[in-house]
Amino acid sequence: MGQRVRRVDGSIKVTGEALYTDDLFLPGMLCGKILRSPYSHARILNIDKSKAERLPGVKAVIAGKDTPGRRYGVRPTLDQYPLAIDKVRYIGDEVAAVAAISEDVAEEALDLIKVEYEELPAVFDVEEAMRPDAPKLHGEETNIVGKTDISYGYVEKGFSESDYVREDRFTTSEQSHGQIEPHAILAEWDSSGRLTCWVTNAGPFTIRRSLSTGLGIPESKVRLCKAYVGGHFGGKAEAFSLYFCAAILSQKSGKPVKIVHTREENFFGTRLRRAHIIDLKTGVKKDGTLVARKCRVITDTGAYGGTGLMGTWLTSDMLLLVYRVPNFSYEGYPVYTNKPVGGPCRGFGEVQARFADEIQMDIIAEELGLDPLEIRLKNARESGDILPTSGKVITSCGLAECFRKVTEASGWNKKRGKRLNNRGIGIAATVSHVWQNFGPMSHCAAMVKMSEDGRMTVLVGAIETGSGTETTLAQIAAEEMGLPFEDIEIITGDTELPQDIGGYLMGATFGSGNAVKAAVADARTQLFKVAAERLQVSIEDLKAKNRRIYVKWNPGKGMSIREANIASLMGGTPIQGRGTYSPPDSTRADFIKGGTKETGTYSFVVQATEVEVDKKTGVVKPVKTWLAMDVGQAINPLHVEGQIQGCIAHSQGMALTEKIVWENGKLLNPSFTDYRMPRSVDIAPVDPIIVESNDPDGPFGAKDAGEPPVHTGLGAIANAVYDAIGVRFKEVPITPENVLKALEEKKRRK
Amino acid sequence: MGQRVRRVDGSIKVTGEALYTDDLFLPGMLCGKILRSPYSHARILNIDKSKAERLPGVKAVIAGKDTPGRRYGVRPTLDQYPLAIDKVRYIGDEVAAVAAISEDVAEEALDLIKVEYEELPAVFDVEEAMRPDAPKLHGEETNIVGKTDISYGYVEKGFSESDYVREDRFTTSEQSHGQIEPHAILAEWDSSGRLTCWVTNAGPFTIRRSLSTGLGIPESKVRLCKAYVGGHFGGKAEAFSLYFCAAILSQKSGKPVKIVHTREENFFGTRLRRAHIIDLKTGVKKDGTLVARKCRVITDTGAYGGTGLMGTWLTSDMLLLVYRVPNFSYEGYPVYTNKPVGGPCRGFGEVQARFADEIQMDIIAEELGLDPLEIRLKNARESGDILPTSGKVITSCGLAECFRKVTEASGWNKKRGKRLNNRGIGIAATVSHVWQNFGPMSHCAAMVKMSEDGRMTVLVGAIETGSGTETTLAQIAAEEMGLPFEDIEIITGDTELPQDIGGYLMGATFGSGNAVKAAVADARTQLFKVAAERLQVSIEDLKAKNRRIYVKWNPGKGMSIREANIASLMGGTPIQGRGTYSPPDSTRADFIKGGTKETGTYSFVVQATEVEVDKKTGVVKPVKTWLAMDVGQAINPLHVEGQIQGCIAHSQGMALTEKIVWENGKLLNPSFTDYRMPRSVDIAPVDPIIVESNDPDGPFGAKDAGEPPVHTGLGAIANAVYDAIGVRFKEVPITPENVLKALEEKKRRK
Repeated sequence: MGQRVRRVDGSIKVTGEALYTDDLFLPGMLCGKILRSPYSHARILNIDKSKAERLPGVKAVIAGKDTPGRRYGVRPTLDQYPLAIDKVRYIGDEVAAVAAISEDVAEEALDLIKVEYEELPAVFDVEEAMRPDAPKLHGEETNIVGKTDISYGYVEKGFSESDYVREDRFTTSEQSHGQIEPHAILAEWDSSGRLTCWVTNAGPFTIRRSLSTGLGIPESKVRLCKAYVGGHFGGKAEAFSLYFCAAILSQKSGKPVKIVHTREENFFGTRLRRAHIIDLKTGVKKDGTLVARKCRVITDTGAYGGTGLMGTWLTSDMLLLVYRVPNFSYEGYPVYTNKPVGGPCRGFGEVQARFADEIQMDIIAEELGLDPLEIRLKNARESGDILPTSGKVITSCGLAECFRKVTEASGWNKKRGKRLNNRGIGIAATVSHVWQNFGPMSHCAAMVKMSEDGRMTVLVGAIETGSGTETTLAQIAAEEMGLPFEDIEIITGDTELPQDIGGYLMGATFGSGNAVKAAVADARTQLFKVAAERLQVSIEDLKAKNRRIYVKWNPGKGMSIREANIASLMGGTPIQGRGTYSPPDSTRADFIKGGTKETGTYSFVVQATEVEVDKKTGVVKPVKTWLAMDVGQAINPLHVEGQIQGCIAHSQGMALTEKIVWENGKLLNPSFTDYRMPRSVDIAPVDPIIVESNDPDGPFGAKDAGEPPVHTGLGAIANAVYDAIGVRFKEVPITPENVLKALEEKKRRK
Repeated sequence: MGQRVRRVDGSIKVTGEALYTDDLFLPGMLCGKILRSPYSHARILNIDKSKAERLPGVKAVIAGKDTPGRRYGVRPTLDQYPLAIDKVRYIGDEVAAVAAISEDVAEEALDLIKVEYEELPAVFDVEEAMRPDAPKLHGEETNIVGKTDISYGYVEKGFSESDYVREDRFTTSEQSHGQIEPHAILAEWDSSGRLTCWVTNAGPFTIRRSLSTGLGIPESKVRLCKAYVGGHFGGKAEAFSLYFCAAILSQKSGKPVKIVHTREENFFGTRLRRAHIIDLKTGVKKDGTLVARKCRVITDTGAYGGTGLMGTWLTSDMLLLVYRVPNFSYEGYPVYTNKPVGGPCRGFGEVQARFADEIQMDIIAEELGLDPLEIRLKNARESGDILPTSGKVITSCGLAECFRKVTEASGWNKKRGKRLNNRGIGIAATVSHVWQNFGPMSHCAAMVKMSEDGRMTVLVGAIETGSGTETTLAQIAAEEMGLPFEDIEIITGDTELPQDIGGYLMGATFGSGNAVKAAVADARTQLFKVAAERLQVSIEDLKAKNRRIYVKWNPGKGMSIREANIASLMGGTPIQGRGTYSPPDSTRADFIKGGTKETGTYSFVVQATEVEVDKKTGVVKPVKTWLAMDVGQAINPLHVEGQIQGCIAHSQGMALTEKIVWENGKLLNPSFTDYRMPRSVDIAPVDPIIVESNDPDGPFGAKDAGEPPVHTGLGAIANAVYDAIGVRFKEVPITPENVLKALEEKKRRK
């Protein structure tokens, strides 16, 4: 516990031995390719597959009519078909698919499929799309997917009692996940009716459920097997058209089918972080105490709804969780446009909210003549706070300590407000749920077994998406069992393993970790029973550490774990443990059928970033970032630091350089050349600060480390830019063009 | 239970979708090949690998010195190295191995390895090998591997009290397993120190243990993953040189290495059924009651000992288990010769004993003027008998019923002793242990989990070697859970699954079956707990059937298993069950370190075969076979019948046509053309008769069906030949040449 151990998947990833989906090969395997819409909005009049089908080497060609015609998505929004049935809704929408003996043949076959379209008017702007007369994507009524409606207290009364009320509009653009490994699947639908898939994914059980829904076969006839995942970042948590296409093509051809997205398809063919418009109205007392808040959020969900409502719900939570808001009202609307589909991305619906909140906090502080730190500390959540929407009591909170450590380390007091040499410093804070689950698939379970050599295997349905989950879970098992880390084998990423929520909603360390801990404890009790008999003591007298079971009050008296295991085997019982974890019920309204369960456990983050703005070029250059995170307990500080560094890069991209360029709904820059993610040279030094509050419900006190550090970059950088050059940005990315334009305007206004 | 369900692996095997080891492909995979000794016995003076290593495309070349130099085998006989270290001991002994980018390059590289040998005198006959002056294969002392020494009662006194004492020598030859799929491995020893293998094998845990021993790495760093197995028959239960070579070549080259035996190598490169010499002396009372028996058995174990001692022990048991022998003494000697290695084969060490016993019973009956059936029934074991060596009480016994049913069905009384039209009928009986285990690796364990859709996954380390294990275990789980068979998914054949004894020692149905049953019962109890709460009854009131949980005394009151499962999930607990099975301790002497555990459960078989002998050609042609087997409970009658049919073919080959041809230790007929296994056209009609005695310890009363029907073919056929033409064969195979020679001699003696 707390050791900087090497990742279990480290060396095989560095050497290239780790197998990703595209590395896999099955006999007779075919290459699948997808035909996409060239129109933003059009009716499909006819699809002629005949020429493609006659091309030698083509084994199957499918269009919407060849699919079961079942819709998939995230409940309650089931609005997407594996292949378009009646019309296409964005440039890139899936129309047909082929499986052929090679990529060349498959591509040639795509060219031979003749589709007749009738073009329809399209809409690309969310506010235009909300108008009654806008072209409608789904049905005839509205482009509004749904509404997230949350309120408590008396908001209007709160505003009337406020000394100062501030209203701002904040906007953020789309962001691509930019995973190094594009989306990929290898599917084999065999003659016994079983569908076996290897998919680069972040939630085997969730994707299995979607495949079951979309294909109309029982969940347990679908198996996702392990393949390593080359980056997830929220973008591999749903099922996508290529999964269904590969499955159906396999069924039709009787062969395994592999589909791997091109880099371009990886940009527009699955999901993008949704662009947000956030109208935020906040009322405060003179001393900065928050009194009331009213928010209206519109998110661009593109052509299909997917997780849109979950996103606007998460946005709402992020506007009330970090700072105490006594009166609150929120409306959130995911809205259809004729663009690629929006979806979860690390800090899903949260990054945008934290951006808005943290800038408005700075504005309010300035207006009231308060220190930005002071106003934050005055309103910051504390351990024991009862949260108004979930009814949960915060179990542990290191937010104040994060503020203290970051401001100390960064020299905040000396640096802030100087506006010297075009340098400035900004601060931002956040929180993350650890964790919630939705419906019956979202629990965590684990099984463990002892091998004959006294080592332990952990069987868990969790998935390693790159964040170190396998290593963390092995560390938890090792600590609980009293074995060294290297004695743990961990088997993950397969739907035939115990059920798991998946690598999102901050589930892995906390949820799967608690399940693993429970399963190990179950096994340990069995071993202790054997040892207690031999040592003539009771189970309660025993402790396990360093491969040894010993008597607590007489550490010299004991036996090795290996010996106890052999004794149990000789007695006829191989040691096997099982454990589960699920958070308690929430008082939150059932916004998803099946109800919500959640903990009172939250991770907290405070980030300060110093930037330098080049007034000639408009380039904003981060100079250094300090980020303190209350992770409860750092199971592996190396991983926590890695997550902090990755999140800082991730948010910096969104804050400064990553911008999807659109032309009438067409994504113009689907490449790493034209879509500018930060490279390692673009990242300023990072000072990661770990705060440990030891959460009572976390495994060994641990909370979450993978998501909240991405929340704070936008606010910290935008606030730092203001501190540096006196220009306030309420829109990201803060591109050089925008900086120059703003400086120009500032000069003009003067 | 008792349903003729279709195999879970049936359709994918018929269509070719099932993946066997040679179907697997890993990126960068190399082809491995083995260089073998051209001499029966020689000292290795030098091995020059340099030319082979310089050949383009060769990635690794290894000889004995490049291996860890650790011996492997079956305890206590660890006498084999992965590659020969000092000398070679048979034509085919492994000397060096290469890994190259293609099979052609690998074969060319083999030719470039220069080995200098000093030839040594060799020995090919076991009795010659036992002489003090014989050339020694291992060390300087003796070629006798060890001695199995078992006795009880007063044998000499028994003989002196006998009315008739009979002495015979019986000899059997080697038999090749002739698996359609030759031995194969794909091994990847990755940079993290883990060795992952796909191996066509019958005991993942046993082979893992051997790999760990021979390679000097912890067991839990070795993983055997699932690949289907194209025939086992006892020949894939041990580790072989190719496994170690593939692993070491992978370690040296940093690439995955696949080695697949050629058909020729499959004959001499792994194991053969050991040839036996059985000297059997039996004393009886006038009425046929057995009084005493003395046996001396020599088995030809070839160049390495392997399972030799286990074999001679099994032979001993088979000479006292079927018929009551009050006084018994036994000496068994596995003996080294300069020939390919002996090993287990279906009916391991047992087929030979049953051949000897059943012919001698016929001879004694004839000498005493008794009916062969009568003498057998007089001495046949019964339920409740206490076995003299293990101290076990036979829990269930359908032997007498098998005799009755077979003699009835075959028209025994009418047909026997007629010697009409060169037709005759013979009978033979046998028994099989169900089951024993040895040492700490031999237990069975299982885990189960419910999927979200209310179906169940069974995780079990058992392996499907073709005998239907997956289907049988799924049927057991279905019956125990109250689900239809198609609701069970079964995951097998991986060492990261719960520990399992493997597909031998009659373990699968009984051992793994009992473990699966226990795991399902554990899960069911959890489901019942949820249901009992909802139905307001106690757990004991509930029963599950047809996907429903209902109140026993009010079947209308209940809920579906799916509902109960969802309720448990909603309550936060995914259902997971665990179970183990291990037989009780035996009073048998510890012949293998770690002790023996065994049950009192035995399966019984009686076979009658009618043959027709062509006196002109000497060909013995079976006309029909009746085989009754007491399997306790036929979980799937289709499988039981399949096992009976397969065993009859297997034993017929050994009885009549399968003969390894030797020339100074060289195996001259390593092909299906020259080694004559029976084809389907060679097999006479079979009348399989299932007897159910409902064993109290078996899962749903089941015992074993896979091995004992192979025991009886030799005796039944040889006795039938005698009945047909009056010639007694105490040696198999009964080839046309031998028949003609014997008829000639019979004529001459007249």
